[in-house]
This record gives sequence, C-alpha cells and structure tokens, in this order.
Amino acid sequence: MTLECAPTAAVLIIGDEILSGRTADTNTGTIARFLGALGIDLKEVRVVGDVEDEIVAALNALRVRYTYVFTTGGIGPTHDDITADAVAKAFGVGIDYHPEALAILAARIKPEDFNAMRRRMARIPLGASLVKNGVSAAPGFQIENVFVMAGVPKIMQAMLEDIAPGLRRGRVVRAVTISASIGEGTIAAALASLQGQYPAVAIGSYPHYRDGGYGVQLVARGRDAAEVEKVAQAVEEIVRNAGAKPTRHSS
Amino acid sequence: MTLECAPTAAVLIIGDEILSGRTADTNTGTIARFLGALGIDLKEVRVVGDVEDEIVAALNALRVRYTYVFTTGGIGPTHDDITADAVAKAFGVGIDYHPEALAILAARIKPEDFNAMRRRMARIPLGASLVKNGVSAAPGFQIENVFVMAGVPKIMQAMLEDIAPGLRRGRVVRAVTISASIGEGTIAAALASLQGQYPAVAIGSYPHYRDGGYGVQLVARGRDAAEVEKVAQAVEEIVRNAGAKPTRHSS
Repeated sequence: MTLECAPTAAVLIIGDEILSGRTADTNTGTIARFLGALGIDLKEVRVVGDVEDEIVAALNALRVRYTYVFTTGGIGPTHDDITADAVAKAFGVGIDYHPEALAILAARIKPEDFNAMRRRMARIPLGASLVKNGVSAAPGFQIENVFVMAGVPKIMQAMLEDIAPGLRRGRVVRAVTISASIGEGTIAAALASLQGQYPAVAIGSYPHYRDGGYGVQLVARGRDAAEVEKVAQAVEEIVRNAGAKPTRHSS
Repeated sequence: MTLECAPTAAVLIIGDEILSGRTADTNTGTIARFLGALGIDLKEVRVVGDVEDEIVAALNALRVRYTYVFTTGGIGPTHDDITADAVAKAFGVGIDYHPEALAILAARIKPEDFNAMRRRMARIPLGASLVKNGVSAAPGFQIENVFVMAGVPKIMQAMLEDIAPGLRRGRVVRAVTISASIGEGTIAAALASLQGQYPAVAIGSYPHYRDGGYGVQLVARGRDAAEVEKVAQAVEEIVRNAGAKPTRHSS
C-alpha cells in the first residue's frame, strides 16, 4: 500500500500464553483499530515469549523502524513479569522504584497487602514517564517512542485512552468494503488493472469459502476520500460486469 | 521457559487486513494448538503487510532461527497475492508454473474459468514441493523448512493436516491450569520461590479483572508429567494457604 507519510507503529505482544495457543490475542485488533482512528499506520506485529533476550531483541528492532511501539503484557507482580527489566535493558538504562508509581499503588493497595512483589510493579526504567491505568491503578510507562502496557485487555484499553492525546496523528485512512458472491479469480485481472491506475489506493481482495461457495470482500483503502470513492465505484462496476451483485459496506 | 531440545517454530502472518484491524487473526491460535499437540514449540509470531521487502526480511530472519516456519496468506489469484514471489526472492531461487499444480487446478476449474490470474496460483518457487489443499484445490508449498499456506482458516487447517505427517515431533508439553479468585500479587512471592525450585516447569500467572474483582489462572507447563504434577499440587497448596479455593483444569 503506497500511502503518504503518516506516523507508523508496531505492536509487540509479550507472553507465553499466546504462543501456547492457550489465550487468543485480542489486543492486536484493539490497537489496530485505535491507531486507524488516529491515522497512524500499524506496520508490524510481533509476539514473543516471556524471555528477556527475545523481548530486548524485538524491541530494539522495532523501535528504530517505526514512529511508535506499543507493548502489551508482563508488567504485573509475578516472577514471569519481566517486561520492565527487558525494556530498561533494551534502552541501556537502569531501573528503580518510581516515587509516583509507588504513591499510586500505595493509595490503592491496603498496607498489609502491599508486599515486595506488588512493589515490583512500581519499578520503572529510568527516564520513563507513567501511563495511567484507570482500572487497577498499576501504571504502564512510556520511554522515548515506546509505550509499555498491561496485557489484560480492559486495562490495556484504559491505557490507550491515556496515551492517545500525546500521539502524533495522520490523515485517517478511509476504507470502503464491497462484498460479492463470486470467486476472486474471475475478476482478478480487472482488479489488477484498476490497482495499476490508482497506486495510492490499496485494493485488497479477501476471499472466503463457505458451504461449498466462494465469496470475496474487496476493500479499497486510501487517505484521499475522493480517490477511494472512484476506486470503490470502479470495483462495483467490475463485480457487475462479472454478473454478480456488489454490496457496499463503508467504514 | 527452560525446556529440553524440541523442534521450534515461528508463524508469519501476511496481510494488510490483520494490520488494519479489519480481520481478527485466528490462524495463530490454530497453528499454536496444532504444534503443541506435536510437541513443537512455537517461539515467535510476526504479522507483516502485503509488501514484498517486509515478507522477505521477516522470512529470512525466522527461517534461520527456527526448525520450521509457517506462513499464512497471500497465495490466491489477485494482484495483492505476492507471497510466492516473496518466498522465491527470500530463498534466492526462481519461480515458475509447477506442472503438478497446474494439473490440480485444471482438474478443478472449468476451462473457460481457468484464466491467467487463476494460473498464477500454480506459480511455485523452484525446488519447492506442493502442500495439498483438500478444500479448494489450489496448493500451498514447502521449500526447505518453510511451509506456505493459505490465509482462509478452513483451507489453512486442511493444509496443516497434509503437513503434519512430515514434521519432526517433540515430547508434548503437559499443562495444568489452576484458577482462583485471588489477586496474583498475594501469592507472587510463593510462586517465585516455587519457580526457582522447578526450573524445567514454566509457571505462568495470568490475571483477569472482571466486575471489580481479581482472579488469576496459574499454568504449570513442562515435558515431564510427574514434575508438572508436583508443581501443580504445590500451586494448589499456595492458593489454599492464601485462603482461596483452587480449581484445576487439565489440558
């Protein structure tokens, strides 16, 4: 997809539970739609396990390539929560108890429950600023262009809300989806020709196969609404010329 | 997680539709569980868009690190299906119409529908062998340690079935999950101590937060069933000592 210069982003999902197939990752989709609404292009997602070297390597690869990196998971109080230490190592900075984070936790957790492991949640890489957690208090943090968030979806969503106002935005991508009960191969040549005419609008073709019948969703995506509309109308024409009925869905 | 030498794997999901948040990826979870049943450790997942250089770079990073790489998406007949070309480029080999693939497609598609774009689905990197598609005929392929599969979940699952018999297997990881209505911070120190005693069993702590109450799922994973059972019993004891009731789920 050829798009004008917009902020870019990567997501780094941290956790053995996704790789084992035990938990389905829903955070990627949430972040993707959040970024889409801000006009930020999500370019890459990686999932790694709870292994420090893997987290460090992935983070260092992503943070130099994209405007922003969003990580999820591994910032709780247990021994398998190693994200804060890994992020500090990736940036080559120290890590220590952050006074404001300690105060936030102390205000939320009863003194008799505020044990050493729960205090670990206040260990923040030096130079980072806190990301507010409106659900369960324990904060995330931002260091340079990296945002470190919780893995629990509801908490992660609250953190995104706190992060949003500080992000650089781009022009929002407009997408029009046209569905048809037709094999994509029937219209593939016409779609390729149309794509050649409109390089700034990405035409995606997503087939499905149900009950022995083929169908396809054709998506036109671009930052220029007038161009997207032209392409969408041309796609509808292509579908009709192939003897099928186009159904339009906008987003 | 410290585990004895087992085959390893990575997944490379190819497609703008995942990065835009339009489509939720379910293939990762399917592949993760498929590999788990064969005793193969899934170590990393990457999602990249329909961009040749991105696919080539990710594939070349993953294929030298892991026993196997499984890709999904981008092998259909339309202009945005560029995976086969990208894989050929990653391996530095040519690509051409594969006689067996052409025969498979010709047997399935009516002659009047077997146009140039549908023929593209028979273009296979030189040296690759075909992966059978029991659903819609158009094959995937294997080149060295890389398996290239369709993105449509039902078709991808059929391809996994074809691939399974040829894979090297490891000892299957046994997992026991214990859930409890307790904040994980309450038992974090005891869990860390237990993890220190049993380095070959990974103890994962996955909190959730619903209706204002905390809960946690504690997962013991390892290849030695007797060790996993010892750890599971110790986890149950830790939960009971904290005044909560452990509920066991095996898998």
